[in-house]
Amino acid sequence: MGFEQAWLSYQRREVCGIAENITGIYAPLQNPVIKSGAEELQTAFAKIVGTRPVLYSDSECGHNRGSIRLMMKEGLPTEGYHIFEEKGMITVEASDANGILYGAFELIRCLQLGKNLEGINLTKEPVMPLRMLNHWDNMDGSIERGYSGNSFFFENDEILVNERIVTYARLLASAGINATVINNVNVKDSATRLITDQYFESLNRLSEIFARYGIRLFLSLNYAAPMELLELDSADPLDDRVRAWWKAKMKVVFEAVPNLGGFLIKADSEGRPGPFTYNRTHADGANMLAEAVKPYGGLIIWRCFVYNCRQDWRDRKTDRARSGYDNFIGLDGTFLDNVILQIKNGPMDFQVREPVHPLFGGLTKTNQMLEVQIAQEYTGQQRHVCYLIPMFKEILNFHTYVKGTDDTVQDIVSGRTFHQTKCGIAAVANTGNDENWTGHDLAAANLYGFGRLAYEPDLTAEEIAEEWITLTYGKDEEIRKELLFILMNSWPAYEKYTAPLGIGWMVNPNCHYGPSVDGYEYDRWGTYHRADHLGIGVDRSHNGTGYAMLYREPNARAYDTPETCPEELLLFFHHVPYSFVLKSGRTILQHIYDTHFEGVELVDEMVSRYERLKGKLPERIYERTMERFLHQKEHSREWRDQINTYFYRKTGIADEKGRRIY
Amino acid sequence: MGFEQAWLSYQRREVCGIAENITGIYAPLQNPVIKSGAEELQTAFAKIVGTRPVLYSDSECGHNRGSIRLMMKEGLPTEGYHIFEEKGMITVEASDANGILYGAFELIRCLQLGKNLEGINLTKEPVMPLRMLNHWDNMDGSIERGYSGNSFFFENDEILVNERIVTYARLLASAGINATVINNVNVKDSATRLITDQYFESLNRLSEIFARYGIRLFLSLNYAAPMELLELDSADPLDDRVRAWWKAKMKVVFEAVPNLGGFLIKADSEGRPGPFTYNRTHADGANMLAEAVKPYGGLIIWRCFVYNCRQDWRDRKTDRARSGYDNFIGLDGTFLDNVILQIKNGPMDFQVREPVHPLFGGLTKTNQMLEVQIAQEYTGQQRHVCYLIPMFKEILNFHTYVKGTDDTVQDIVSGRTFHQTKCGIAAVANTGNDENWTGHDLAAANLYGFGRLAYEPDLTAEEIAEEWITLTYGKDEEIRKELLFILMNSWPAYEKYTAPLGIGWMVNPNCHYGPSVDGYEYDRWGTYHRADHLGIGVDRSHNGTGYAMLYREPNARAYDTPETCPEELLLFFHHVPYSFVLKSGRTILQHIYDTHFEGVELVDEMVSRYERLKGKLPERIYERTMERFLHQKEHSREWRDQINTYFYRKTGIADEKGRRIY
Repeated sequence: MGFEQAWLSYQRREVCGIAENITGIYAPLQNPVIKSGAEELQTAFAKIVGTRPVLYSDSECGHNRGSIRLMMKEGLPTEGYHIFEEKGMITVEASDANGILYGAFELIRCLQLGKNLEGINLTKEPVMPLRMLNHWDNMDGSIERGYSGNSFFFENDEILVNERIVTYARLLASAGINATVINNVNVKDSATRLITDQYFESLNRLSEIFARYGIRLFLSLNYAAPMELLELDSADPLDDRVRAWWKAKMKVVFEAVPNLGGFLIKADSEGRPGPFTYNRTHADGANMLAEAVKPYGGLIIWRCFVYNCRQDWRDRKTDRARSGYDNFIGLDGTFLDNVILQIKNGPMDFQVREPVHPLFGGLTKTNQMLEVQIAQEYTGQQRHVCYLIPMFKEILNFHTYVKGTDDTVQDIVSGRTFHQTKCGIAAVANTGNDENWTGHDLAAANLYGFGRLAYEPDLTAEEIAEEWITLTYGKDEEIRKELLFILMNSWPAYEKYTAPLGIGWMVNPNCHYGPSVDGYEYDRWGTYHRADHLGIGVDRSHNGTGYAMLYREPNARAYDTPETCPEELLLFFHHVPYSFVLKSGRTILQHIYDTHFEGVELVDEMVSRYERLKGKLPERIYERTMERFLHQKEHSREWRDQINTYFYRKTGIADEKGRRIY
Repeated sequence: MGFEQAWLSYQRREVCGIAENITGIYAPLQNPVIKSGAEELQTAFAKIVGTRPVLYSDSECGHNRGSIRLMMKEGLPTEGYHIFEEKGMITVEASDANGILYGAFELIRCLQLGKNLEGINLTKEPVMPLRMLNHWDNMDGSIERGYSGNSFFFENDEILVNERIVTYARLLASAGINATVINNVNVKDSATRLITDQYFESLNRLSEIFARYGIRLFLSLNYAAPMELLELDSADPLDDRVRAWWKAKMKVVFEAVPNLGGFLIKADSEGRPGPFTYNRTHADGANMLAEAVKPYGGLIIWRCFVYNCRQDWRDRKTDRARSGYDNFIGLDGTFLDNVILQIKNGPMDFQVREPVHPLFGGLTKTNQMLEVQIAQEYTGQQRHVCYLIPMFKEILNFHTYVKGTDDTVQDIVSGRTFHQTKCGIAAVANTGNDENWTGHDLAAANLYGFGRLAYEPDLTAEEIAEEWITLTYGKDEEIRKELLFILMNSWPAYEKYTAPLGIGWMVNPNCHYGPSVDGYEYDRWGTYHRADHLGIGVDRSHNGTGYAMLYREPNARAYDTPETCPEELLLFFHHVPYSFVLKSGRTILQHIYDTHFEGVELVDEMVSRYERLKGKLPERIYERTMERFLHQKEHSREWRDQINTYFYRKTGIADEKGRRIY
């Protein structure tokens, strides 16, 4: 067993009497989504309980002890469900098929977690309307920032449709994810032709499999497609020929692939073409596409990751952190209703610690989605364990002060703040064709956790971790305890032994893996730490780039002064001397030394806890995970020593505790 | 005209009366090498003088005014020639065909340079027996460290045999080069199969073209071939099966490709397999192959670039600079006579400044070849101009003190010191399929200059540069003056604005292009500068790694003390404080600041001198070279600013002259 089914690897477990007595499942099987739910229940009961309930189509349903009833019922919230037990019969009600499917998976989860179904009575509804994955898969089979092998969607410029796709869809549905973009936002070569008839048949088959699991297929779009497909000599969004081309193109595409949800677009970013080429705004660009897809209910998801990637490191006035805000804030209210702006969690790029993106709370009249990254590009690349749900929760719970109440990021992207329905959360995916889906076995907690968090953000990070542990490895107290410790300490540990106090980067260029303190310091990417002999940090206060002032009060004021700035972000907002004293009483420099030693100690603790599970986990799983832990152990030392040595050599000030620095 | 013929782009020139009167060339045309020489003369006269002399085979020869006679004559030194004029007839004599060919090219050179042939009487002989190029071309057509386009030897795993190969051979012969290795020393994939019948026919055709120009074809060999060709399970040099395999293999190879000169081998280096795998010595490995090729007069050229490329940067005891010496010195005298050790000019890897490799002067009983690199891997990658002949001359003129007289590197590799004939000089080539062969037009001076230097090392770098300028661009005083200034100042300029005082590296990892002061500081490659707040440099004295003591006296003593160490190598041998005062009266730090500003000023001067040639050079040539100069201008500033900023930030000490540092 290599966990090819991840957390859906149903194993025999101890279950309650009610579960043991289930012999039939009644459901309107003519609905393919409900049928998926019913069949999943059948499989799960067979494997977990040991008896395989019989499926009956809806018409045969009555009130039977020992049966599960899946039934549509008006009035329940979209994609929500109600599960209750009465006299040995379990009912899953929902007002739509997705709700039934999610209810079925909830019931399976209860079974896996060993919950007593007697008297169960729970109602759930998803908080985020869109719960989406973004795959950065290329059609040659490679994955940009992929750390789990190659693509399972593409190979040699062809779309793959096979059994793995079904398992993928089941995994997503079980976690509550309802949309996915299968191709890289950097759309090049063959991927530009995904919207031509060459690929329609495969796309349609793929979209039908997804649809059976309540998942809408999206594609990343090449903004310059009319030119790159050699059909027009322009991509100007205000050119009537271009607008007509897109309308005609979308008609063909949606007729051929009716399940398509819409498109994700990265324009004018890192070398990608966009409306700026024609002196048009991003609203011009997005609205042109939105008009074209509107007749088919399509969405245009427009990324806000727009910045000058040819900055001069000598220039201290330009601030990449400002660019997303500066490029989009003036367009607030000018986007059509089927456009959603997709905004990264922070203003830079998925660092281990960033402030929340100031467009959240800045925009008030535009549909917004939060983009996070479970592909651990800057957080250990799925070779280090780094459970990201605690980070995501901090982001979601951030108060933007855009309204008196309902002012958090979660409020905004769930639609509460501005009464929107086209909004939600997207994660850059961490999957590939590795047997265990995510390279590091423990990285699957981020995939599962992302979906669960999107559906039910009030779950704590611990609750989600515990769920995932038990679903994946079974109900064992020691496994639960040790893995929970590891997961919950993994992000703090990673933050400690890598770039300190919100400064970010300090990684090897291009691959973004491993320490290189000056790796991005003299580069064109706008990512600097400005460390010299006396101090470190970027002045983004009103005296510096003014970035801090992009936030609403009282955030702006707090960020603007070193003394009130949250310490974990101190070097993001301020250039301070190494002698600056933190609340702990330690100087910045001593804080750097201490946290780097502490981070490595935490990793050692994590590894020794994992060692206790030897014999409890299947050997192959244990060994392959241990291999990664041993790498992390060594590599965290590399981080510690390089960072500490860098600052020791630059300051000439020794560690107060006299530990070894090189 | 894109200079597809480089310095053989024969143009009409003013010539002396003797040349104008030449109407016939008499030569033993049955010899293919002599025929090449005669035909080259015919072509050159036709294009330069404007009249095409008639070719007559030897038997028709008499004493005729207005003729050139190419004739064999016993007693002249190998590959040497004697040219003299008598009563309007010019004679080229040599004791072998290569000598005749080189004499013919010398005569053409005289013509191109506008020399008066009346009374000409010159005798030349090559100083280095082997004058070789090493191409790092891969069979997929890429070139490792290639900066002039793709390979013209290989494409899609096939060997190309075409007109460009003939021009290539003519270029080499005209510069006196007599051997070439066409494939990368890192032998992988298809290149391993170059010694199988799949490639024999093409290799044979290639070798025959080369042979017509006096050039012997060599191949790089995969030491693990018996295993990678799936014929044996070992490559142990003391295993009789392995020895028998190589003997049989070489019989087949040399019978199929009789012109083959032998093989170049990189073993146990940077991941390449070798005898160390079997706890055998490099002598075991090399001798096994030497025995196998001996019956066919084959040579085994064995590279000494062996070091631990998995070093821990924290470890200050291990010294990569020592490794070549330490690995080979104990084997001196144990290699068979047809083995040549090929030793890089310095102990590290083709940096802008290194001490001479201590194996020169260390080894006394082993055939040795000097390896230099005209591919400008660390010296501007043929985007910056960097004329390397002055560097090579310094290396060749270095006194090793291995003998009372004849103790220089040139003495050793020419065979003088130890009375050897299997020795010489090899250059990692800078050619590709770019129209002008070398990417940067001025980089061709290194290709031409390398050959000329190998044949006639007593030429000065200026003389060689002037020759090349006039051959290539014609006889024009301003062109000569400005290009000579540019070439002669290019290496000093590059040294000034890049890594200072022999410390090396400070480049971006992998690509080796552009500044990154800490790029190799925390890496596994053994390449460190150890800069901290107070000082910089690597202690290789007797107090440090002891590397300085590998030299013979008085070199060892001179290198061992900062005060006596040549300043250009100071940081290679010593860790000194920034306040250390140089002979100029400047501190190390001020020297760094000053030289970096000076280097950029020199580049500006070079560029403004090149601008004066606008209108004098063909426009296309001028423009494409100017494009590279403009890049160099900008990129030298990047070097200056990053290096100066790095040290300013680290030391906190400002430039005395108050110039802008960031």
